[in-house]
Amino acid sequence: MHQWVVSFDAGSAADRELLGGKGANLAEMTGIGLPVPPGFTVTTEACRAFLAGSGDLPEGLLDQVHTAMGEIERRIGATFGDGQNPLLVSVRSGAKFSMPGMMDTILNLGLNDVTVEGLASRADPRFAWDCYRRLIQMFAKVVLNVESEHFESAIDDIKRKRGIILDYEIPVDALRLLVTDFKNIVRAHAGQDFPQDPYQQLRMAIEAVFLSWNNRRAVNYRIKNNIPHDLGTAVNVQSMVFGNLGPDSATGVAFTRNPSTGEPGIFGEFLVNAQGEDVVAGVRTPRPLAEMRDDPTFRDAYFELERIAKLLESHYRDMQDLEFTVQSRRLYMLQTRSGKRTGQAAVRIAVDMVAEGTVSRKEAVQRVEPSQVDQLLHPMIDPEYTPEVLAVGLPASPGAATGMVVFDADEAKHRGDAGERIILVRIETSPEDFHGMVAAQAVLTARGGMTSHAAVVARGMGKPCVAGCGALDIDYQAETINVAGRTITKQDYITIDGATGRVMLGEVPTINPQAGGILETLLGWADEFRQLGVRANADTPHDANVARSFGAAGIGLCRTEHMFFEGDRIQAMREMILASSAVERRAALDKLLPMQRSDFVGIFTEMDGFPVTIRTLDPPLHEFLPHTDHEIEQLADHLKISVAQVRLKVAALREANPMLGHRGCRLGISYPEITEMQARAILSAAVECAQRGITVHPEIMIPLVADHKELELQRAIVDSVAQEVFSESGTTVTYSVGTMIELPRAALTAGAIAAEAEFFSFGTNDLTQTTYGLSRDDAGRFLPYYVESGILPRDPFVTLDQDGVGELIRIAAERGRAVRPDIKLGICGEHGGDPESVAFCHRSGLDYVSCSPYRVPLARLAAAHAALGEMDRDR
Amino acid sequence: MHQWVVSFDAGSAADRELLGGKGANLAEMTGIGLPVPPGFTVTTEACRAFLAGSGDLPEGLLDQVHTAMGEIERRIGATFGDGQNPLLVSVRSGAKFSMPGMMDTILNLGLNDVTVEGLASRADPRFAWDCYRRLIQMFAKVVLNVESEHFESAIDDIKRKRGIILDYEIPVDALRLLVTDFKNIVRAHAGQDFPQDPYQQLRMAIEAVFLSWNNRRAVNYRIKNNIPHDLGTAVNVQSMVFGNLGPDSATGVAFTRNPSTGEPGIFGEFLVNAQGEDVVAGVRTPRPLAEMRDDPTFRDAYFELERIAKLLESHYRDMQDLEFTVQSRRLYMLQTRSGKRTGQAAVRIAVDMVAEGTVSRKEAVQRVEPSQVDQLLHPMIDPEYTPEVLAVGLPASPGAATGMVVFDADEAKHRGDAGERIILVRIETSPEDFHGMVAAQAVLTARGGMTSHAAVVARGMGKPCVAGCGALDIDYQAETINVAGRTITKQDYITIDGATGRVMLGEVPTINPQAGGILETLLGWADEFRQLGVRANADTPHDANVARSFGAAGIGLCRTEHMFFEGDRIQAMREMILASSAVERRAALDKLLPMQRSDFVGIFTEMDGFPVTIRTLDPPLHEFLPHTDHEIEQLADHLKISVAQVRLKVAALREANPMLGHRGCRLGISYPEITEMQARAILSAAVECAQRGITVHPEIMIPLVADHKELELQRAIVDSVAQEVFSESGTTVTYSVGTMIELPRAALTAGAIAAEAEFFSFGTNDLTQTTYGLSRDDAGRFLPYYVESGILPRDPFVTLDQDGVGELIRIAAERGRAVRPDIKLGICGEHGGDPESVAFCHRSGLDYVSCSPYRVPLARLAAAHAALGEMDRDR
Repeated sequence: MHQWVVSFDAGSAADRELLGGKGANLAEMTGIGLPVPPGFTVTTEACRAFLAGSGDLPEGLLDQVHTAMGEIERRIGATFGDGQNPLLVSVRSGAKFSMPGMMDTILNLGLNDVTVEGLASRADPRFAWDCYRRLIQMFAKVVLNVESEHFESAIDDIKRKRGIILDYEIPVDALRLLVTDFKNIVRAHAGQDFPQDPYQQLRMAIEAVFLSWNNRRAVNYRIKNNIPHDLGTAVNVQSMVFGNLGPDSATGVAFTRNPSTGEPGIFGEFLVNAQGEDVVAGVRTPRPLAEMRDDPTFRDAYFELERIAKLLESHYRDMQDLEFTVQSRRLYMLQTRSGKRTGQAAVRIAVDMVAEGTVSRKEAVQRVEPSQVDQLLHPMIDPEYTPEVLAVGLPASPGAATGMVVFDADEAKHRGDAGERIILVRIETSPEDFHGMVAAQAVLTARGGMTSHAAVVARGMGKPCVAGCGALDIDYQAETINVAGRTITKQDYITIDGATGRVMLGEVPTINPQAGGILETLLGWADEFRQLGVRANADTPHDANVARSFGAAGIGLCRTEHMFFEGDRIQAMREMILASSAVERRAALDKLLPMQRSDFVGIFTEMDGFPVTIRTLDPPLHEFLPHTDHEIEQLADHLKISVAQVRLKVAALREANPMLGHRGCRLGISYPEITEMQARAILSAAVECAQRGITVHPEIMIPLVADHKELELQRAIVDSVAQEVFSESGTTVTYSVGTMIELPRAALTAGAIAAEAEFFSFGTNDLTQTTYGLSRDDAGRFLPYYVESGILPRDPFVTLDQDGVGELIRIAAERGRAVRPDIKLGICGEHGGDPESVAFCHRSGLDYVSCSPYRVPLARLAAAHAALGEMDRDR
Repeated sequence: MHQWVVSFDAGSAADRELLGGKGANLAEMTGIGLPVPPGFTVTTEACRAFLAGSGDLPEGLLDQVHTAMGEIERRIGATFGDGQNPLLVSVRSGAKFSMPGMMDTILNLGLNDVTVEGLASRADPRFAWDCYRRLIQMFAKVVLNVESEHFESAIDDIKRKRGIILDYEIPVDALRLLVTDFKNIVRAHAGQDFPQDPYQQLRMAIEAVFLSWNNRRAVNYRIKNNIPHDLGTAVNVQSMVFGNLGPDSATGVAFTRNPSTGEPGIFGEFLVNAQGEDVVAGVRTPRPLAEMRDDPTFRDAYFELERIAKLLESHYRDMQDLEFTVQSRRLYMLQTRSGKRTGQAAVRIAVDMVAEGTVSRKEAVQRVEPSQVDQLLHPMIDPEYTPEVLAVGLPASPGAATGMVVFDADEAKHRGDAGERIILVRIETSPEDFHGMVAAQAVLTARGGMTSHAAVVARGMGKPCVAGCGALDIDYQAETINVAGRTITKQDYITIDGATGRVMLGEVPTINPQAGGILETLLGWADEFRQLGVRANADTPHDANVARSFGAAGIGLCRTEHMFFEGDRIQAMREMILASSAVERRAALDKLLPMQRSDFVGIFTEMDGFPVTIRTLDPPLHEFLPHTDHEIEQLADHLKISVAQVRLKVAALREANPMLGHRGCRLGISYPEITEMQARAILSAAVECAQRGITVHPEIMIPLVADHKELELQRAIVDSVAQEVFSESGTTVTYSVGTMIELPRAALTAGAIAAEAEFFSFGTNDLTQTTYGLSRDDAGRFLPYYVESGILPRDPFVTLDQDGVGELIRIAAERGRAVRPDIKLGICGEHGGDPESVAFCHRSGLDYVSCSPYRVPLARLAAAHAALGEMDRDR
């Protein structure tokens, strides 16, 4: 006969697969002698057999349940269904992975019209009848699908009739009547009576748990979290203990360390004379756990809990989340599991546990999720505070910030420079809003996805951003936002939380988590394990400095175009674009040269000793031109040409699909003098730094190459400028030339391209756009639905699509290395800061990832995780 | 000693590689006993050795030339450099492939101050001195790089001084003076004397021919035509015969059949008392060859020429292009080669030659270039006429047409319907111009490439189109075109030639080539050889009818969206788009359903027995919305909503990159009711046709799939509608569901997609755009330069890019077939009508190509070529 039932005495934590997480931990606790009420687990295997079968529980299961119940009866000294001394049990689901959506808990199972009297005679009649009405209500809801509201309204009726306010004030006679009402409700809505046979209750409860594995919420949750559908759930049947047996009973939850800060010492809350569901109902406010210690009634239980917490923590070698009940001063443990924690707590606990000798450095590194590190670097909404949420957009760049609403970049700059805290609110942003973003505390947009301009630039600056918040109706004319029935004006403060996407009214208190030295300790350990290099995307000396302080070993992407938006440069840039001949164009470029050069000197100086990858001009030229009448007039005036001419040029440069237009190296091929100027700025800056004793490794990156000939031509320009600069200055520096791989054709023809390229940097933002045929600026209209409904497992602009984009990366890496075995391979898209994507880069054998400066810590940790994961697999 | 020199007696046509085309044919003619002046060929091998060496001719070459010259002297009875009876020779280049740009010809070599007197004494002094001055001029130009203009101005001086109009009126004394002047010019500009030593002349001429192999024009030509650079050229040295020896001498060219029409019988022209260059100079007008027959002096030579023409044609088994000279009534053959011919002639000659038993059907099929077939289906500019060309754009859709200029689609429709011939001129066209294009004779645009909207739609309609003619400055307000210093108004007629891209002023006469039955005969033979199926892209019953008449075996792409632009449908479409709920949307869709249904009934009826692939809605919805104020007001009025609401919707649907936006199956996923309506229209039409006895094979194609789940969802809708329709009607038809492969990700994940798809149709237009990251609407700004400068070998929107896009097709075909071995694979991009791309599809094992109806004949022939080419290679 197959074993469908495993007693808590027989299992262990290693049986998670068979017993589910909850059952395995109850068995483990039982095994190490902790006060766990006796019980048993019906296995996940039984669930699978039941779901695969014709609707009956597998053969032998009920017999085994009977036997196991007999064992509990023997241990407790009470009998299931006995009229004098009835055994009551709880039934709880417990799958391998914690999973909301399944049937959760039924308490007090075993009560019926007869046993309730037995319980009443042994304990307290009010308590007994309250237990019974709770059982009927819970059982009806989760087993018989009767809506709770029917029961709630029956309770309300009674309370109204008797003038009672709180549930626990209902007297016993009323509870008796209520039980009768409840049974009638069951009959009316379920078409059957509440079962009086305790074993029938138990069988029905087990079946209901099994069936709930396939309810919609559970299925959707599994889809979303990549949990296989064929695992099944276990059922835990455990003898009841009662935290509501009187003033010397209680129920509570505890963490073995503070889950917010990581501070050592148990932390939690408890409720006197209550069952678990009362805590959830929120009618009474639980008290902090520390007060248990100061209460003579519970002091012993507290110290016992503290002892058990230490024991469990060292047993599981991790911070635990515990459920307990005190029945008549005696402590019982009902659950233990690894405790959820904030990023700050995760780092502190991991580092502390290494110091305590509990875990190794490797384990400490693995214990902290890369995404948790991100929390540590940005202010967050005070978790104690419940703000008024107006709308939720995309969590585009983490951190919380408060400020007054501003709709215009110039005004943002003006007011920001004047010291005001402001939040720039735009339908969408463009490079022209850059100075406004710099001056703002945070950025909020109504359109655009996780890799929209606003999102990318904000992440680059480490500034909070909520993007694509479609619920905002922004009116630039009126300078208002209409949202959730309110009108927000320029006088109003709002707060945004870039980690969750929330947009909130007013000033919401934020806290600045401080990890400091502890985080650097952990990341230092991570660095010992990782193989991937981590660089940063940085466009200015300031960004480079930030990147280096976060541990970036080089710059993987320096976008030269952002430099052109600063100060007077945009004017020179526009002169260049409007030039009517190569001679005029060169004259304008000559003005830009010293500006670019000085930027590069600054960046090389900051990155002394590290490589710096600089991309030549990439965006289409129309991005640099003015679009408002006023700006166009100003420009015409400045250039002494007619407004019509400027308009004509603006119109002529307009593109149907700018993403696929005249940009990247196509510009450098149409206007070789632009590449020439940029190469000269980079290389002469490198020479100047080298002469000052700074170690420079410039890597010149040609963007948007589709064919090897494009790279060949651009490379020839760079090489020839290099020869000129070196012979003019008498100083030679080593530089390399490579390309972005950001078009499918570049990946497919990577062999030919590698003949010309010393490095490839995968520009996965654009590669995702072209591989999917998906504009990140327009995807907001349908991509969220795609992800919600599971058509795509995740937003491919956030987590690299391994089947499509990843396949191209593998093809390119293979073909590139076949031609040039020592070619350097990196990634510089937004994916460089996404843990799952970093793991992919590790597996694909790339040399480095490059991400926003503020994501460098995360990437360092993710790279270590990837390497350690592989080590563990290989073992 | 290596043999560098081959006498005409020793070679044959098979030695083309070694002797070049001209030399090999001269040897062949010599071998079959034709009157070829004796001579020899310096081999291509000698050229290669010379170019690889240090600047000297290979060892032994000059000795062999001496020996060969001795042989000629012996045969002619004259001696090279002899003062009394000098032998004169011509020197001509001749590579394996005919190649403009190389040094061509030097005549009369061997003349000097001494031999000229000998020639004068034997022939005529004026003739001799004219030959000498011609030699100096030609030699100086091609060997010594002296500009011709110096000599021309010396001739002009003499003529002016003496009051002479025509060159051949210059008397002998003046010619003598001219020779002195010419020699001075040589000394002054070449820094050396004209060489008096005939062997030095010969050596220098041979070296000059060799060196001209690497001059820029020749190199560029080879790059453009994929001719290897290491072939080298041969040099032909041949004893002179003189067509300018008097009134019984002549020179001429002849074709063995009419190269314009293919009519049998020799055809050509001749010039009495002239040398070849006179024909080229165009000073005197040559006379039709037939007049030779009627001229007693040349009658014998004519009949001899006729006999030789027949002989050569049956010898070479192809129509020949001949050069001949009559010297004192005696005919000499100077060249034979396969003759260039029009498409009409090519078809007629091929078919006639099969009837005559000269060539096999297979050879006949191979003799006609697919692109030549295209000419036969469209009117062309009368080749006799020299029009005034205003500008040249892209040859976007072949055919010539004349009409008055119209700038607005509505006006075009109005006037076109009224019977006026008009040409629609737009900066670029959009779907809203469709009705105007239908009414116009032809379409002309200033922007957009070979696959712009105008080009694609015009080709689909078989209507001439010149696209992307950037020289046109179109002013919609003024209703004028400014071009080439002229202003064209609405009163002006223009003519466009879509085969060459020419835009011409006024009415230019056109001719309608008639191939008819002959073409169908040839294509019937082609069908016997080809393996690829050929279908057409057709959106209406009319197009389907045309396609079928051209031999399409099915429709490979029926775009449902074009149907929505007709008549009132656009109104219903707009209602659908502006609907504020799924209920309203369904109501609008219900109006569209019967319209779509009746279209499909018409198309299925036309294509009885053949498969019809119908694509569900593809373009972004904003393409259907109005954009002018007036139209927006009309729509608001019609829908009884505010203008602001319409504007808001238009603005909301605007996209940054519509090509990568909310389109294709993304629409069907956002609005499943659209796919439902379309599936219902298709399947109920199929049922209706089946009930009428028509054989239907509907293939429903889901566009822009990036992930297999999208197809899964859309397919589920189609299948469920099919069940409904079949059970409602009691009739079941077989249908299949498949997808366009038009995104790189679809190609890469073709395995997963094939699990859901019964067919793949490669949408190579969009696949090219995404693989290259290149918008076809915007590529006009740089793609032409890319092609001109050789960065890309050809426009990838015209000829499929085999390295990138082709690689994705191979990957998709392989992965798709691995999962579903019988999956049907086709291509429906514009490349389906390009011969080279069709050959690629054949090699890649696709099942069919689909192209515009007017390209079907071309594709049938190209597919046969591809199959025969493979047969030949395999042999």
